[in-house]
Amino acid sequence: MRALMLNCTLKPSPAVSNTQALADVVVKSLKEKGVDTEVVRVVDRHVPPGVDTDLGDGDEWPRIHELLLDSDILIIATPTWLGQPSSVAKLVLERMDAMISETKDDGTYAAYNKVAGVVVTGNEDGAHHVIAEVAGALVDIGFTIPGQAWTYWNMGPGPGPSYTETDHRHEWSEKTGRTMAANLFAAATALRANPLPPAS
Amino acid sequence: MRALMLNCTLKPSPAVSNTQALADVVVKSLKEKGVDTEVVRVVDRHVPPGVDTDLGDGDEWPRIHELLLDSDILIIATPTWLGQPSSVAKLVLERMDAMISETKDDGTYAAYNKVAGVVVTGNEDGAHHVIAEVAGALVDIGFTIPGQAWTYWNMGPGPGPSYTETDHRHEWSEKTGRTMAANLFAAATALRANPLPPAS
Amino acid sequence: MRALMLNCTLKPSPAVSNTQALADVVVKSLKEKGVDTEVVRVVDRHVPPGVDTDLGDGDEWPRIHELLLDSDILIIATPTWLGQPSSVAKLVLERMDAMISETKDDGTYAAYNKVAGVVVTGNEDGAHHVIAEVAGALVDIGFTIPGQAWTYWNMGPGPGPSYTETDHRHEWSEKTGRTMAANLFAAATALRANPLPPAS
Amino acid sequence: MRALMLNCTLKPSPAVSNTQALADVVVKSLKEKGVDTEVVRVVDRHVPPGVDTDLGDGDEWPRIHELLLDSDILIIATPTWLGQPSSVAKLVLERMDAMISETKDDGTYAAYNKVAGVVVTGNEDGAHHVIAEVAGALVDIGFTIPGQAWTYWNMGPGPGPSYTETDHRHEWSEKTGRTMAANLFAAATALRANPLPPAS
Repeated sequence: MRALMLNCTLKPSPAVSNTQALADVVVKSLKEKGVDTEVVRVVDRHVPPGVDTDLGDGDEWPRIHELLLDSDILIIATPTWLGQPSSVAKLVLERMDAMISETKDDGTYAAYNKVAGVVVTGNEDGAHHVIAEVAGALVDIGFTIPGQAWTYWNMGPGPGPSYTETDHRHEWSEKTGRTMAANLFAAATALRANPLPPAS
Repeated sequence: MRALMLNCTLKPSPAVSNTQALADVVVKSLKEKGVDTEVVRVVDRHVPPGVDTDLGDGDEWPRIHELLLDSDILIIATPTWLGQPSSVAKLVLERMDAMISETKDDGTYAAYNKVAGVVVTGNEDGAHHVIAEVAGALVDIGFTIPGQAWTYWNMGPGPGPSYTETDHRHEWSEKTGRTMAANLFAAATALRANPLPPAS
Repeated sequence: MRALMLNCTLKPSPAVSNTQALADVVVKSLKEKGVDTEVVRVVDRHVPPGVDTDLGDGDEWPRIHELLLDSDILIIATPTWLGQPSSVAKLVLERMDAMISETKDDGTYAAYNKVAGVVVTGNEDGAHHVIAEVAGALVDIGFTIPGQAWTYWNMGPGPGPSYTETDHRHEWSEKTGRTMAANLFAAATALRANPLPPAS
Repeated sequence: MRALMLNCTLKPSPAVSNTQALADVVVKSLKEKGVDTEVVRVVDRHVPPGVDTDLGDGDEWPRIHELLLDSDILIIATPTWLGQPSSVAKLVLERMDAMISETKDDGTYAAYNKVAGVVVTGNEDGAHHVIAEVAGALVDIGFTIPGQAWTYWNMGPGPGPSYTETDHRHEWSEKTGRTMAANLFAAATALRANPLPPAS
């Protein structure tokens, strides 16, 4: 089984990504279950905005798109800005928009029988909405969102520390992240054995 | 297999519910697959606001809560007001909030291994957000949202006709509703055979 | 100048409303500026769901609607459930939907030249979205939302204490609440002197 | 009086921007009122993601930031993708995040006493949410959103034509756009005469 995690931080490497710090808990948990898990920090690649799979001119999305098609599990990991998903997360979702009209050999849409989850960090409130916004777009494209396939961290009220700057209740976010990994794995297993049918 | 549909129209019976008119396509499709499907028009029952399962004083939620626990599939059908789910839909989600701390005999949370979908009608734009908002709350509670487990209808721009006042593109909404029913049924079947584990 | 605050807690009196506790900071601030401020705890009144101004049968919305028409400033104060505004807040916004087609003597829509703000508390993350959701509906109806006309409180991550159970960073939420009151007062003053025109 | 419109289409020039086609109605209306209005098609500039005003390395945001500071009126014009604002719109809002900690000579925050509105087009449902999402972020930063300072166009249900491919109800979107321009102009005038105070 394969998983792809798209880290949608705004900060190119080698800057510390708080989002990756929490996401690593989910990655570790998936690997322990034998899931071959790859992480792509999207902002390090050349991915222009658009709604086609290949925009040419050095576009690196086609390679990510291939990884996506080869994966059973997708995780969008994103920081929270203005209470919303990052622009990089939205960019990634837009590029996936093309998958709505792509079909697989069995006649199902490209995202059918793939499961997806969301990891959110922030230095301010917003995680519930970020999860709903990303999950809503993924369900639109055809991904299945297992119950509690998310984890998040922020504290407040108002602007507060970043995830790596404090240990405050990391244990809650980490435990929730392990549940997320277990639910993604179980739901992907379930859909592999009993898949959604081709749209008639 | 059992399904429960909560029609969250603001209008008590016997007024025509546009939402029910589209929802009926999904109900018919589920019944054709042998799913025992019950529809509750919530506004016809006495369901006060709150976040407990039984608020006493003639509260009719406990009966709906029982139907919910007995169902494999939940469908929230809601009109669109101000581009958002109806207050009745939000009321229902709040009452389900108590399920976050309820567990089943196998140790899983009350909503685990149940799948859910959303039917939306409106006389104005808003369906995508209504789906994301309802699905986000349901995933928070522990339901699984299968890919494309939704259908909607509205036309615009600006205020337009209600669903039952025109035939404009009903075929798209109905076809999408049949896909929704197929995906709910398939995902419920998949999770019954290979369930999500109890949270550790 | 007059203000109306609608407290949209789910809990009828005399239960403690955490939302009111933070909202009181804004009320006090408005009163200090000479604004005649009334608070209505909506759940204590008989307000059925719908989109008309008077639903008959003991409907108490018409009295609230009158207070609304007499006010220069509206404040929606709401708890956060599942990362979203309360069902009572949504109920109130739906009842205000009728104002879209009501006009005043000067030909402007009922909500024109009224300003509005949002107070949010919660025992979990969600405030930014609650503010956007409520403000979005109010702008749709025709209210003006002054810059930073909001305050909120919650801490996390995950479920945490209620507002009245801790003092954690109350000072931030209170200071932000005083700014909110100042901005509502200033914007209402500005629009009284230089109003929005009737829609042509 | 000055206005800045940021067109957040995903498509670089010279591709046709449906969003610009509707936005032009608002621009024309503002110009008729004597407002000096500039349009920037953001995707044509080099604007990397981030939350600082100047990211160096050829970053063209600082020039847009200057235009913003010089403007009384800001308009975000965006297409709808997956029922949400474009990634370019989100990018722009993130870059404006820095304005939260910038103050003007009079001690007010950078966005205080500026008004903002939203123009939305799409080939599918989503406009109400796009408006709420963008307005929510702008109010967070400190902009004032006048009543009905928005217009939109899409038709459905399901994927439909783009704005420039049909004339269907353009008159509603155009009339609403002219109201939007009138309300932005009136509210900017009002706040110039009676400004929001510095935060104390």
